[in-house]
Amino acid sequence: MSDQLKQRIRIPRLRDKITDAATAAKWIKNGTTIGMSGFTRAGDAKVVPLALADRARHEPLKVTLLTGASLGGDAERQLTEAGALVRRMPFQGDPTLRAAINRGEVMYVDQHLSETVEFLRSGQIAPIDVAIVEAVAITETGGIVPTTSVGNSASFAILADKVIVEINLAHSLDLEGVHDIFIPKRRPLREPAPVLKASDRVGMTAIDIPPEKIVAIVITDRSDSTSPNLPPDEETAAIAAHLVKFFMNEVKAGRLSESLMPLQAGIGTIANAVMSGLIDSPFKHLTMYSEVLQDSTFELMDAGKMDFASGSSITLSPRKAADVFSNFTKYKDRLVLRPQEISNYPEIIRRLGIIAVNTALEADIYGNVNSTHVMGSNMMNGIGGSGDFARNAYLSVFATKSVAKGGKISSIVPMVAHCDHASQDVDILVTEIGLADLRGLAPRERAQAIINNCVAEPYRQMLKDYVAEANARGGQTPHVLEKALSWHVRFQQTGSMLPEAEVTTIKVA
Amino acid sequence: MSDQLKQRIRIPRLRDKITDAATAAKWIKNGTTIGMSGFTRAGDAKVVPLALADRARHEPLKVTLLTGASLGGDAERQLTEAGALVRRMPFQGDPTLRAAINRGEVMYVDQHLSETVEFLRSGQIAPIDVAIVEAVAITETGGIVPTTSVGNSASFAILADKVIVEINLAHSLDLEGVHDIFIPKRRPLREPAPVLKASDRVGMTAIDIPPEKIVAIVITDRSDSTSPNLPPDEETAAIAAHLVKFFMNEVKAGRLSESLMPLQAGIGTIANAVMSGLIDSPFKHLTMYSEVLQDSTFELMDAGKMDFASGSSITLSPRKAADVFSNFTKYKDRLVLRPQEISNYPEIIRRLGIIAVNTALEADIYGNVNSTHVMGSNMMNGIGGSGDFARNAYLSVFATKSVAKGGKISSIVPMVAHCDHASQDVDILVTEIGLADLRGLAPRERAQAIINNCVAEPYRQMLKDYVAEANARGGQTPHVLEKALSWHVRFQQTGSMLPEAEVTTIKVA
Repeated sequence: MSDQLKQRIRIPRLRDKITDAATAAKWIKNGTTIGMSGFTRAGDAKVVPLALADRARHEPLKVTLLTGASLGGDAERQLTEAGALVRRMPFQGDPTLRAAINRGEVMYVDQHLSETVEFLRSGQIAPIDVAIVEAVAITETGGIVPTTSVGNSASFAILADKVIVEINLAHSLDLEGVHDIFIPKRRPLREPAPVLKASDRVGMTAIDIPPEKIVAIVITDRSDSTSPNLPPDEETAAIAAHLVKFFMNEVKAGRLSESLMPLQAGIGTIANAVMSGLIDSPFKHLTMYSEVLQDSTFELMDAGKMDFASGSSITLSPRKAADVFSNFTKYKDRLVLRPQEISNYPEIIRRLGIIAVNTALEADIYGNVNSTHVMGSNMMNGIGGSGDFARNAYLSVFATKSVAKGGKISSIVPMVAHCDHASQDVDILVTEIGLADLRGLAPRERAQAIINNCVAEPYRQMLKDYVAEANARGGQTPHVLEKALSWHVRFQQTGSMLPEAEVTTIKVA
Repeated sequence: MSDQLKQRIRIPRLRDKITDAATAAKWIKNGTTIGMSGFTRAGDAKVVPLALADRARHEPLKVTLLTGASLGGDAERQLTEAGALVRRMPFQGDPTLRAAINRGEVMYVDQHLSETVEFLRSGQIAPIDVAIVEAVAITETGGIVPTTSVGNSASFAILADKVIVEINLAHSLDLEGVHDIFIPKRRPLREPAPVLKASDRVGMTAIDIPPEKIVAIVITDRSDSTSPNLPPDEETAAIAAHLVKFFMNEVKAGRLSESLMPLQAGIGTIANAVMSGLIDSPFKHLTMYSEVLQDSTFELMDAGKMDFASGSSITLSPRKAADVFSNFTKYKDRLVLRPQEISNYPEIIRRLGIIAVNTALEADIYGNVNSTHVMGSNMMNGIGGSGDFARNAYLSVFATKSVAKGGKISSIVPMVAHCDHASQDVDILVTEIGLADLRGLAPRERAQAIINNCVAEPYRQMLKDYVAEANARGGQTPHVLEKALSWHVRFQQTGSMLPEAEVTTIKVA
């Protein structure tokens, strides 16, 4: 037994549980419900799921898989291709799995990320049989120290009968201490979550379970998958600039201070780019109370702009990952990683007064937002934490490029083909064209603000024509129902939302 | 000065402020933003708004009117007919005003009821100039004791420069002590709201403002408008019976106790009838943590079924109002009335684990709910507190009769024409046909559960046909976009959602 392993598994008798992935995977039976670590590709179990996929290729093995959010690596693809997944929640982000979901082969339950363990804790969905949790160490008292995400790992381990731990040597022991594991009590004993500012620590640094629940330990040495975020481009820079200008006006109006309010940024290229845009802003002493900490968080810290960041995971580009994780002590006391029900807890989001920045797949002229379903039917990833934050935020911002597919899709449409966020939860809509401040506006006013500020020609004129026709029919939120989804239908039929006459006039981004 | 008035206005110098409604109304200038008491017809200012309407008939007077929720009496109609309303938030319930809103003449900002004062407090919407608050008394220290609702009155009075008080002698002084005025601090000083159970009192019994802000006091003697709820009928009884059976199964499964969890019931006939249905159930020691307390609350107390009810207003039928308010001390220590941002506070709703029962105008096969917009465009009342509760509840139930307009409208449609509540916020859908338990189901499974349990023929077969066609196209949430709103379009064109061939076969309820 190496000293390294002794440091990583501090209860001697637990070292007997060390085994290989295939052996550990035998604890998973056909029909098992698995709760696995992993949140936006960070801190996911690396090898047991692959061993499971191997088995599923040779024997009947169908499982329900719950995680924090999306996994990295190849796990979802291999499990899907092996036909091992019958049910998946609360989020995913793998193209192969996504295709299986959209074929109706995997039942995908797309949940608010704060709610999964509430359903489990109250027995409202089928219980977790086995938890598989990646860890940097198991402490002297059996505490499981997570790696780069907490996600739902703590509650999975607490609620499961059996726990498989993957000790990942690729993660530095420096991560120990960054986590803050606070688990709300069952009702009616539930008390306030005592987080009064982003930096408050209210829990323990490890997941506290009886060590005898650990049935197997697998040693791995594989880095997290890195972020697939694209670098900022001209449009995302324009979106960021519009938002910075808006925030500056809010400061001028006395509604915000130079430190703004705690920031949340959704996963992905656009929200990350918006945060990066704050580097060249006049704001300082920023904080984050978010779910995933991306490159922009650390860029803002490096630039001296951000004092503290609270999240549930750290997901970085290859370059930034190398930098951050090899100098983790430099950042550690300005970071905390929480269970996702706490990072996304409505109570805390409302109390702190979060500025939430999330990405819209499309929005409509009234500011309803579709975050999930391409052309209303096909799942992209999932609603994630956007609903936890948008509903309860001080200020809810949704950002999108004004067009997609080289201009063949307008991200602003007469009516969203799927609604994740009702207009009440959308205060600001911003595209590279401009920003619509929708606070205190009635629907007809929202339509004017969105069309005039966020949409480029020829879609702008097309939306004006739609509004004119709809307003003539009347209503609080006027629509021409037989045309409300016609842009989507046209795209399905012709490959473009543009009528044929307009196709030649679009300015492609 | 009568002894009665001395009891009602306990600071002698304030008695000089007593005046008539027309004089008091002069404090309101053209362009004023008014914050007025009133929540679901209860505790609204009775005479100053009518005096305002009188003035608006003879001089330019355009105001923005904020309230708790809907008003009673004739105020909204008269103000609308006089052309006095340019903007209205966060809720309304008057047919004349509704028509003006739907004609686009009044800008109506339909808000989550917990959020209006958050927007005001942070300066994100235009400030209140004058508050008009109905009260039973003004205390020795200038505290305003509200009447049958708290609504937003406390924050309106705190945030306004000037306060007009209507002392309503028709409300008994027995109401004093039932209110619990707790106002969350501004961020970043906000602390947890320390409500750990429905009966917790955490604030004061009156609205604490400097007495010098009171610019006028008007004495009135008019009862609240009573509830327009219809009595339970065969369908609402069936809906209640399905829910009682469901709750009994939850108790059997160990997920609920015989006291269930704190209950919320939306305003209106159906939710009220569902609550009444609990009278003949095996449950006991029930509690409510709701916004409006309706007849059913007191029926449950009278039947010994309910121990305590927390709300923001009391709105009763004429018969029940006479009974409750003439015997108020009988109920008083089992009641508390809170500001609506506290009755509807996401933090508390999530902490207590509310069972929320709200009414759907329509729902779709995937369990998205439209609470507000008839045929997608025309406002009915508003989203009210349904979003505050449904998003954060332990269990979110939506109830509706399966058809409307004698069968010409199906309340279950392929796609809602307006989405207030995304499918994640809808756990149970119940009609008089039956109940669909949607917890843990993927969209394709939700569609089966809803169609098979909640829909009558011929709509059931029509929905099955739609699903078959949609599933053939694929997707997580399969739709045939060109047909998704076709039922609504057909209704607009023919007066019925039924295709002509089906019109003769419908079994009308």
